[in-house]
Amino acid sequence: RRSHMAVSYTDPQVSMDLLRAVLQPSFNDDIMAVFRKYHKFFDKAAQNVKENVSEEVQTDQLIREACRNALEHAKQLFPEAEVKRAGPEAAIKRARAADEDYS
Amino acid sequence: RRSHMAVSYTDPQVSMDLLRAVLQPSFNDDIMAVFRKYHKFFDKAAQNVKENVSEEVQTDQLIREACRNALEHAKQLFPEAEVKRAGPEAAIKRARAADEDYS
Repeated sequence: RRSHMAVSYTDPQVSMDLLRAVLQPSFNDDIMAVFRKYHKFFDKAAQNVKENVSEEVQTDQLIREACRNALEHAKQLFPEAEVKRAGPEAAIKRARAADEDYS
Repeated sequence: RRSHMAVSYTDPQVSMDLLRAVLQPSFNDDIMAVFRKYHKFFDKAAQNVKENVSEEVQTDQLIREACRNALEHAKQLFPEAEVKRAGPEAAIKRARAADEDYS
């Protein structure tokens, strides 16, 4: 499948993602170090859930899901655009930028 | 909309997500601290892109997108299930678990 993709090294997104991929292993180590701080809380909560819910609960799955959710929510630190916070002016600016994408 | 939602405090996912939400601000601080380590690389790359690409490049947007992508890829540290690595036995186990969800 990859052979059919035209990879442009001048595409800004592609260039940035190449760097992201290079940094990812180191970044992952740092992320794991952060999660080790919180693991005891998630583990305790998962154990409680297992005690309180009569069905069989897979605590490992629950903890991993919580970790994925934490990463998903952390994306809000890097919002896609300032539209949410800004007024109509920014919306117009954004619409103009979208037009330029097709020119 | 929220008033129409039945929030079950015995739902394992809900219980875990309540904890996740409580920890999120502290977690976000730690994530930002990690990204500060990598910001100089992303910033340098974005500046290069801006120089090499003749169009107007919004470096801030590029950096934020790279950060979101790094978080997305970090989710692979916490895989949803062991199906990818495991053989047919795990797939059967998983199918059985899915059946139980509907019982």
